[in-house]
Amino acid sequence: MGLFRRKAKKAAPVCSVVVVAAGSSARMGQDKIMMQVGDLPVIVHTLKAFESVPEVAEVVVVTRDDLISEIAGLCKVFDLQKVTKVVCGGSTRAESSRIGALEVRGDTPLIAVHDGARPFVSEQVIRAVIEKAAAAGAAAPAIPVKDTIKVARNGVVESTPDRSTLFCVQTPQVFDASLLRAALQKAVDDGADVTDDCSAVERMGMKVALTPGDERNIKLTTPDDIRLAEAILMEV
Amino acid sequence: MGLFRRKAKKAAPVCSVVVVAAGSSARMGQDKIMMQVGDLPVIVHTLKAFESVPEVAEVVVVTRDDLISEIAGLCKVFDLQKVTKVVCGGSTRAESSRIGALEVRGDTPLIAVHDGARPFVSEQVIRAVIEKAAAAGAAAPAIPVKDTIKVARNGVVESTPDRSTLFCVQTPQVFDASLLRAALQKAVDDGADVTDDCSAVERMGMKVALTPGDERNIKLTTPDDIRLAEAILMEV
Repeated sequence: MGLFRRKAKKAAPVCSVVVVAAGSSARMGQDKIMMQVGDLPVIVHTLKAFESVPEVAEVVVVTRDDLISEIAGLCKVFDLQKVTKVVCGGSTRAESSRIGALEVRGDTPLIAVHDGARPFVSEQVIRAVIEKAAAAGAAAPAIPVKDTIKVARNGVVESTPDRSTLFCVQTPQVFDASLLRAALQKAVDDGADVTDDCSAVERMGMKVALTPGDERNIKLTTPDDIRLAEAILMEV
Repeated sequence: MGLFRRKAKKAAPVCSVVVVAAGSSARMGQDKIMMQVGDLPVIVHTLKAFESVPEVAEVVVVTRDDLISEIAGLCKVFDLQKVTKVVCGGSTRAESSRIGALEVRGDTPLIAVHDGARPFVSEQVIRAVIEKAAAAGAAAPAIPVKDTIKVARNGVVESTPDRSTLFCVQTPQVFDASLLRAALQKAVDDGADVTDDCSAVERMGMKVALTPGDERNIKLTTPDDIRLAEAILMEV
């Protein structure tokens, strides 16, 4: 018995992952998730990050209608075994998350939502946020804000929030599955302008815990970000 | 007369610039302002940016004691004609700004304070913020925040401020000269933890106007930023 107890506990596949890649990439000028970074398309980097994480049960990709078959093809080519579905998203970010949260299998207690355009998320970041969400119900990785942030309206500064209380939130954001589905349904029904999934959960009055994020877990938005991504890859 | 009025008005040298480069570069692991980016040290890129701006009367560099002669040497080598002084800074950012604001000549109505580690500030950004400060008394360039920002304490999210009201403030920040000197003196006297010069001015109850910043006007803080800087330079 003692021998068994001392063996490292094998992590159970407790979490389904929704990868949201349904945006228009307006600021990039082309489909950012299909852009090549290093020798792989962005979306392949992203999906590969979840393949080896033992807590991850499956991955559902939510994307635009016109990208479904291309992404499904990439999953086959790169043998991404955890990707179970590639489905069509909605017209808003919350709508796409909601669709993903309904498409995952029903027996995983946790759902993670991850930006398709964050290709450099590490196993460490993923495991830490899943572990925290298992305990707290809702968790997201975050890094301290480096810049001085101003709250401004009509071009005039109203206040300078204390920087030590400000965090850039990243993904994957992980939640109790029922909580997330309810929160996203409500956000969509209310037409709420939520820029991340935590916000939908916070609107329900629920607490979200923060876990350590990673400077390299960048979200690719502009062409400058692609250059930074190339630089990051060269260092790895 | 009509002919004269239609001629472009020559901009008067109304602004003294304080370039603050007195930090320890703790997160970079070496003196960031002396690092080579492209074919020039960071501080040379920064100082060159102000040379051709007609509104700039002079530049005073505030740095660490051990860097004074090296920076003065670079100014000579690169023929930086607007740099009039290289002086020793204080133990805090506010203290170094204050020293710079006292070292500039007394006849310019405006003082700009700029981070030595922002080498890619454009003439357009500099001129716009000087013009705005001449009209409003205090102005700073800023860009909209891209990330979702959380206010958190003890690892738990307290709120998600409306992203459309959040701006990353950059430098140069430009002020009425007497206002800036008074505000920095008060911040230093009060031991206030101000992360930028605007904050010192805001503490006096004065309004600060925002002008368009630039994504490329980055502040070099970490080694990843140096890689991004190299990528930016390759594009120029």
